[in-house]
Amino acid sequence: MAEYLVQMQVNIPPEMPPERLEELRAREKRRGLQLRTEGTIQRVWRVPGRVANIGYWQAPDATVLHEKISSLPMFPWLDVTVTALAQHYLEAEDR
Amino acid sequence: MAEYLVQMQVNIPPEMPPERLEELRAREKRRGLQLRTEGTIQRVWRVPGRVANIGYWQAPDATVLHEKISSLPMFPWLDVTVTALAQHYLEAEDR
Amino acid sequence: MAEYLVQMQVNIPPEMPPERLEELRAREKRRGLQLRTEGTIQRVWRVPGRVANIGYWQAPDATVLHEKISSLPMFPWLDVTVTALAQHYLEAEDR
Amino acid sequence: MAEYLVQMQVNIPPEMPPERLEELRAREKRRGLQLRTEGTIQRVWRVPGRVANIGYWQAPDATVLHEKISSLPMFPWLDVTVTALAQHYLEAEDR
Amino acid sequence: MAEYLVQMQVNIPPEMPPERLEELRAREKRRGLQLRTEGTIQRVWRVPGRVANIGYWQAPDATVLHEKISSLPMFPWLDVTVTALAQHYLEAEDR
Amino acid sequence: MAEYLVQMQVNIPPEMPPERLEELRAREKRRGLQLRTEGTIQRVWRVPGRVANIGYWQAPDATVLHEKISSLPMFPWLDVTVTALAQHYLEAEDR
Amino acid sequence: MAEYLVQMQVNIPPEMPPERLEELRAREKRRGLQLRTEGTIQRVWRVPGRVANIGYWQAPDATVLHEKISSLPMFPWLDVTVTALAQHYLEAEDR
Amino acid sequence: MAEYLVQMQVNIPPEMPPERLEELRAREKRRGLQLRTEGTIQRVWRVPGRVANIGYWQAPDATVLHEKISSLPMFPWLDVTVTALAQHYLEAEDR
Amino acid sequence: MAEYLVQMQVNIPPEMPPERLEELRAREKRRGLQLRTEGTIQRVWRVPGRVANIGYWQAPDATVLHEKISSLPMFPWLDVTVTALAQHYLEAEDR
Amino acid sequence: MAEYLVQMQVNIPPEMPPERLEELRAREKRRGLQLRTEGTIQRVWRVPGRVANIGYWQAPDATVLHEKISSLPMFPWLDVTVTALAQHYLEAEDR
Repeated sequence: MAEYLVQMQVNIPPEMPPERLEELRAREKRRGLQLRTEGTIQRVWRVPGRVANIGYWQAPDATVLHEKISSLPMFPWLDVTVTALAQHYLEAEDR
Repeated sequence: MAEYLVQMQVNIPPEMPPERLEELRAREKRRGLQLRTEGTIQRVWRVPGRVANIGYWQAPDATVLHEKISSLPMFPWLDVTVTALAQHYLEAEDR
Repeated sequence: MAEYLVQMQVNIPPEMPPERLEELRAREKRRGLQLRTEGTIQRVWRVPGRVANIGYWQAPDATVLHEKISSLPMFPWLDVTVTALAQHYLEAEDR
Repeated sequence: MAEYLVQMQVNIPPEMPPERLEELRAREKRRGLQLRTEGTIQRVWRVPGRVANIGYWQAPDATVLHEKISSLPMFPWLDVTVTALAQHYLEAEDR
Repeated sequence: MAEYLVQMQVNIPPEMPPERLEELRAREKRRGLQLRTEGTIQRVWRVPGRVANIGYWQAPDATVLHEKISSLPMFPWLDVTVTALAQHYLEAEDR
Repeated sequence: MAEYLVQMQVNIPPEMPPERLEELRAREKRRGLQLRTEGTIQRVWRVPGRVANIGYWQAPDATVLHEKISSLPMFPWLDVTVTALAQHYLEAEDR
Repeated sequence: MAEYLVQMQVNIPPEMPPERLEELRAREKRRGLQLRTEGTIQRVWRVPGRVANIGYWQAPDATVLHEKISSLPMFPWLDVTVTALAQHYLEAEDR
Repeated sequence: MAEYLVQMQVNIPPEMPPERLEELRAREKRRGLQLRTEGTIQRVWRVPGRVANIGYWQAPDATVLHEKISSLPMFPWLDVTVTALAQHYLEAEDR
Repeated sequence: MAEYLVQMQVNIPPEMPPERLEELRAREKRRGLQLRTEGTIQRVWRVPGRVANIGYWQAPDATVLHEKISSLPMFPWLDVTVTALAQHYLEAEDR
Repeated sequence: MAEYLVQMQVNIPPEMPPERLEELRAREKRRGLQLRTEGTIQRVWRVPGRVANIGYWQAPDATVLHEKISSLPMFPWLDVTVTALAQHYLEAEDR
């Protein structure tokens, strides 16, 4: 599995109607949990003070990674930066 | 208590109706005073010429800090940067 | 334990004598393995193409985190950026 | 007293001889404590992972502030950013 | 008097109705002339090619400076950067 | 094979002795041709006006990619940026 | 043929009506395939996580290149960066 | 005559009605040709892939330059950067 | 007279021998006072915390301005940014 | 002929021995005049306050352009940015 650092900034406009936002959030959470359960999202943290997160993702390749990220219901409002990760020697022994 | 530098830029659109802005400001001030009274916001300064501020905040951890920041009524319009702060040796003696 | 994303760029000058570099690397690896074994460095990845890494660190607070990072023998040559991490709701359930 | 946010990055070259570095650090600490005792440096925090700090300083004006900062023995190696601070309305009441 | 370099970028949306723009400009000019007459704006230049200006302002402190800047009718559309200025030795003699 | 855009800026100091530079360039070219022949470097272009290049590389994963890049004799002087590439739909048909 | 690296970020607003977006995408794909068939777009990759792509284009000169890029139906929403490419010595032999 | 490099990025919103855009473009072209004929715009090039241009302008001073630039009908949508140009010694002989 | 904002950052290496630095400073001051007396440097302020200054300069044109700036003994160590200034309407009346 | 905007920043270290600098400058001028005479450098201006220039160059393609730029004796100390230029419609008529 290829490894990636995925940083997401969510840019939902403040004037989005609350019901629509709530529905969007519910769908986002559902899809997020699926990606987490299936192991695509290995870890994810919130960036404090922002509607943003940093995640450690795994996918067979960058094409599948893109499909997974763009399957998020909030994708049209996301600003995403992907960094390919290589193995560090400190982890070489134990894997 | 963990310590943080919290920098906030407020991006309220100029075309927001004045009554809504006033009401939003009133709620923001109320919540801000609560955070200040309870000690979450230890100090806060305005950046001159901008609708922006720099604060020295305390919270048990980054998760609670995020809850506090996102409890501000203006949160959807804020651009916030959080910097974790460590103890400086000049302050080690007197604390 | 507080959680941090720690990004490190190593700026060793190319003209450092090879024996000194080797000795420095050996000490860096030894200290790195200690930090990894004790759980300070939870995960660490290499940024491909660069002498740089991205790590997920844990420490009681930012003061201890700084002590740990600055205990690395290569610290005088490091350019380090620390981001405090908060809990993401996708992980709230399972922890 | 005028108020300032003072951010300092210390760029001592790693190849400085240890005795010189130690002597420089000792003098820096002495001068730093003076500035802290006299109330010029009101608060100061270390930026974790970096030889850098963020301080809340007070001085009669920017000319005196510059004299105070440039009186630090490490000044030739410092990269300093000063931000003038204004009073925030959350603090207006209690001062 | 404290001294400041004040840089202003005016971001009026091109679709603002002409009468409103004209009225806003008239009020801006009136307030600008007051600030210039009273000596808050000592000098001001236009940045060629932009709706932007660079000014040399004087105010008792940053709090008053902020009040003066935010009293401009165009303030909600301004992006302002303030730099505190200290005395330069070339001017020390003649002041 | 995973695909990457690899951008390299070469920062050889101008004062490197000419013979050393020549020898370094000869070794760099030899290793570059190997990487090109084996298919790691699929395409490479020079950025005009700079000692810099942009390449389209293929490798099984980011760990091998890093090994290949760091096998270049000029690696200690390189500033490299790697971008993981995914398949574009315009190429989906013909591969 | 002159060679160019063309990087495109697509900034379609999330609130565009789905039918319009679909029709725009269909036309974009049609024009993209023409440019690819005629050899203007030699290669193109998607930047994972973004509605963005990186392409290797060929055109007689920058004027024709601009005509080709601006013939894309999505051009009004594109943020495009063009880099002129020169021949690298590793490719000099085999062309 | 003073000399300037004038870089312009045109930010017309994609949703501007076509007739209005056409009319705006016609007026822009007319004014542009006047500035070119009178010698204010000495040379102008398009930045490929962008609605942007780079020009070499002449004007008696920066105040007149600003009047000329702001006389363009598209001025409210322009993001302009002006660089003052001095004579280069390679041109000193032949002027 | 053309008007310019001239921002200077002085990058003297900390390891310059003190006598050489002193001699350089003495010559810099002498030349600076000449430029100030002759009216080229109209005003100049120190940026607090930095060896940097912001000046309001006047010169017949950018070519002469460059000659004046490069006549400063510290010129080889300066990082200078020049902004051409145009007349602001608030000053149009009184000049 | 392809057209390019070529921006050059010259980074000669201040401590280069004066005779070497003079000799380098003499050779640079000689080569610059050749490039100007042969029409590669069509126009060139100095950026006031900096050892930098902006030029309008012509070359058959980016590969030849790179050869011309790198033939300058100061090339190892140059930081060069090349922008490909396309024809602007204001110049289409008269060429």
